Amino acid sequence: MSLVVVGSVAYDGVTTPAGSHERILGGACTYISLAASFFTPVRIVGIVGEDFAQADLDFLTSRGIDIAGVERAPGKTFYWRGVYSEDMNSRETLQTDLNVFGGFDPKLPESYRHEPYLMLGNIQPSLQRSVCSQMAAPMLVGGDTMDYWINDFRPELLETLKQWNFLLINDSEARLLSGEKNLKRAAAVIRAMGPSILVIKRGEYGATLFHEDGYSNIPGIILEHLKDPTGAGDCFAGGFIGYLASRRVRLDGGAVSGMELARAVVYGCVMGSFCCEEFGPDRFRTLTRDEIEVRFQEFRALTAF
Amino acid sequence: MSLVVVGSVAYDGVTTPAGSHERILGGACTYISLAASFFTPVRIVGIVGEDFAQADLDFLTSRGIDIAGVERAPGKTFYWRGVYSEDMNSRETLQTDLNVFGGFDPKLPESYRHEPYLMLGNIQPSLQRSVCSQMAAPMLVGGDTMDYWINDFRPELLETLKQWNFLLINDSEARLLSGEKNLKRAAAVIRAMGPSILVIKRGEYGATLFHEDGYSNIPGIILEHLKDPTGAGDCFAGGFIGYLASRRVRLDGGAVSGMELARAVVYGCVMGSFCCEEFGPDRFRTLTRDEIEVRFQEFRALTAF
Repeated sequence: MSLVVVGSVAYDGVTTPAGSHERILGGACTYISLAASFFTPVRIVGIVGEDFAQADLDFLTSRGIDIAGVERAPGKTFYWRGVYSEDMNSRETLQTDLNVFGGFDPKLPESYRHEPYLMLGNIQPSLQRSVCSQMAAPMLVGGDTMDYWINDFRPELLETLKQWNFLLINDSEARLLSGEKNLKRAAAVIRAMGPSILVIKRGEYGATLFHEDGYSNIPGIILEHLKDPTGAGDCFAGGFIGYLASRRVRLDGGAVSGMELARAVVYGCVMGSFCCEEFGPDRFRTLTRDEIEVRFQEFRALTAF
Repeated sequence: MSLVVVGSVAYDGVTTPAGSHERILGGACTYISLAASFFTPVRIVGIVGEDFAQADLDFLTSRGIDIAGVERAPGKTFYWRGVYSEDMNSRETLQTDLNVFGGFDPKLPESYRHEPYLMLGNIQPSLQRSVCSQMAAPMLVGGDTMDYWINDFRPELLETLKQWNFLLINDSEARLLSGEKNLKRAAAVIRAMGPSILVIKRGEYGATLFHEDGYSNIPGIILEHLKDPTGAGDCFAGGFIGYLASRRVRLDGGAVSGMELARAVVYGCVMGSFCCEEFGPDRFRTLTRDEIEVRFQEFRALTAF
């Protein structure tokens, strides 16, 4: 009963007001799988170059992540470099070298195909659809996308969304995808495209969940020492789907309660908040399940009235 | 046991994506007092011109608001005109005619001076201080301010804040006042200036409350039909202090629980949300206490997990 995660595995060059790293492990698949690994067994699909360090693969396997689906190809690993604004709410991309990721054509190992949970990181919508069709009978499928696919690959994206149970995007993407300014109306339009569960990520302001019985608004936690927000949205996704997988939630032939989904959103916020505390995915080297529960209870306390 | 509210009484010209009004009742004092009037008796101090309509005074008295402290002066009432952006999250001021408000020197009627609650709308800090010193022994005092006073009247503002139990400002103002980017550190700096209770208003994202035992984060409610956000922050203030007054909360010689303060913040959010549903303060012509309770329960539901 594992979660399959597909997406980029990368090296990032990150500069934030808290410091700078020239080359640190990154990529959506990396962040999602690390965050989810605290809740459920995870199997990943990705591509890396000849330069990818064994120590980084070892970090993933040390978290129990199955890397059988990681292809090593001739060339270099996907590299991204960017710099964050003073308040870390926005960033500028300085360099994007797709390298081997440019030829990514995800193939699921046979051992992955009967797993019940699938989380598709932000890649080309038709590749996301191809992965989905390689799965035998997933119980819960969803993913992420971005403005580029919404603008330039809209027909493919709409076809892809039909297969999904949940979609995680940010508020500007939700407005772009739906053509609606108002988030409630935007959510109604998007849910009619396929995903019955829509989570709108709002960065430091938390997240809003829409589902068939209504919506929930989960505020963010205020971190006093924030080092690097890279990957926070992917860690949100990992916490969200990881928690649902750990609860054996299924949408094929059954409904899941709004309260259970809201708890998954809180676990998403929790994992996103931990991610920001260190550069890259370093916080997950030491994080414990107990610390996760303590922070979950902090969310309870800070939203109680 | 009334709440005294001091601030501007105005006419506004408002253009939003939902429509336009050339001249509608406005002003911080108006909005605060109307919102608070659903919770507690209110007495206001303000100044209006010869053009101020009897019907508008009648609206205030119909809500049980004592207008003995409203001075009518030769000249015209304060007039502001502005236009909101497409998403209504920002606005541009097109016209500001202070008129009689330029000579506002608030004098409390004798009948007001022994009231326990005082809410100071956004006016010159030394005027706020003058009002405070006219009160015999208020149990709970607080107010609002803005970037203009923080930048250009800093010494006066710091002197004024020493007298306050609570301060309500938005996040950019909190950063400006404290010189700290991080909201937790900003809150610590501001609370050391005087107000033990700090509420940071975050518009559609709700509000964050800081007090001696910690902090609370209350998310916003998502309105599907938003007409005019003018006055929402003041209505937040009215709901917040109105609720605390209705609970006979006092800070002189006693602490108030964080949970009670968090409920006051939720009532603030509730009143701010109603304010946006119609142009100007029109929603308060028909609003009932039952509708307020229903929305309070909606906040409970949307934040439950």
